[in-house]
Amino acid sequence: MRDCIGILGGMGPLATVDLMRKIIEATPAARDQDHVPVIAYSVPQVPDRLAAIASGDDAPWPWLLAGLRSLERAGAGMVAIACNTAHHWHARLQSETALPILHIADAACDDIATSCAPGSTIALLATPATVALRFYQERLHARGYAVAVPDASQQECVLEVIAKVKAGEVSGARALLEPVCEAMLAAGCHRLLLACTELPLALAESALDTVALDPTAALARSAVARSLAARNDKIRDGHQVVGGFPQPR
Amino acid sequence: MRDCIGILGGMGPLATVDLMRKIIEATPAARDQDHVPVIAYSVPQVPDRLAAIASGDDAPWPWLLAGLRSLERAGAGMVAIACNTAHHWHARLQSETALPILHIADAACDDIATSCAPGSTIALLATPATVALRFYQERLHARGYAVAVPDASQQECVLEVIAKVKAGEVSGARALLEPVCEAMLAAGCHRLLLACTELPLALAESALDTVALDPTAALARSAVARSLAARNDKIRDGHQVVGGFPQPR
Repeated sequence: MRDCIGILGGMGPLATVDLMRKIIEATPAARDQDHVPVIAYSVPQVPDRLAAIASGDDAPWPWLLAGLRSLERAGAGMVAIACNTAHHWHARLQSETALPILHIADAACDDIATSCAPGSTIALLATPATVALRFYQERLHARGYAVAVPDASQQECVLEVIAKVKAGEVSGARALLEPVCEAMLAAGCHRLLLACTELPLALAESALDTVALDPTAALARSAVARSLAARNDKIRDGHQVVGGFPQPR
Repeated sequence: MRDCIGILGGMGPLATVDLMRKIIEATPAARDQDHVPVIAYSVPQVPDRLAAIASGDDAPWPWLLAGLRSLERAGAGMVAIACNTAHHWHARLQSETALPILHIADAACDDIATSCAPGSTIALLATPATVALRFYQERLHARGYAVAVPDASQQECVLEVIAKVKAGEVSGARALLEPVCEAMLAAGCHRLLLACTELPLALAESALDTVALDPTAALARSAVARSLAARNDKIRDGHQVVGGFPQPR
């Protein structure tokens, strides 16, 4: 199904659910059938991505590839990866499949371009691996933004926030994250880029939500736009359509 | 993966997300890898189940079967159906696959038996199709409970609540559902069985939540218990295990 969004997820599982919810919210729909098809592979046994990147080992790779193959067999028409850090393997996954794999930083930066003036300073809140891999900084610099990263103690705190969300302690995570965000705003940052899929969950009920930029939501909107375009292509190309929808098989 | 929960969903998509969230909440976990693997097939184009059951046509069947086959190919080890009404096709789906397909009413009634005294009266809030199919009433009567169903105007209202949730209007849905629940409690019902996967979403932020019985949560707990048992079996049977988890493939 070319319009079916495959989610390579489970990293963590709550972040996968968050992406799915944001896909629903990004879809104009009055009834079930208006929504876009999604197949989510949420297998949280993928070994720790941070530890692997830090030590240069490749433990997550066979798990990520197994997830990609599962989504192919299940019938996905595109892939979205519900984990910023796992985008370390984005190019390698893309080289293994004919399915388009969206990049969360492309989606986020397209979105930022519509809401932030060039020259703004963006606080990059992410895992140390995502910060070190520089895929956000490169894209943001290319669009004329300045990027600030947390100092060492703030970065420690961000990691602790992520672990708390993964353990289900969302309100404790929020209490830890807010002071880091406030310090970065006080130091001159204009917006907070929540570039780990656990962080939007931590800040969802915070007043700081208004200055946050959410790559998960941007990825959801990008995937929905692509899915709706593929649905329209199918209908235009004369697939058997019942009730406005192409039929299975 | 015998421990992987396959979700046949999309009916509607928010109910699928709700089941996934309840699976996460039902799992004792301190980190990603402790959670159970889930593959969710959330394809909301399945034709209207109510209309099909009312008219005796079989339009949803090829879509449900396509979903089951997708979950088999993707590697699911069991199936949970994230829609009460679609359990009309439960036995027929089970006859098509070697994978165990959990029944939401079995899970719900096992749960009710732990929290409600026999002789209690349970208000069955569901689609007219689920009410007419009687799979809840039969199981509840067998365990010694009385069952009350909404009158015609209350049933109309429940249908409207379900449509509102499917359209994303959750707070409007709550405002409509609460008076029906209060009337049934005033008429002598002891507990409210929310036997359509949209209804727990409508009542999530209501004070009535304390007397509600949630089959979605019961299905989640049942699936998690089965998944954890399968994981332990795999570990005991000497599969290659790294970090406590059987390896992919």
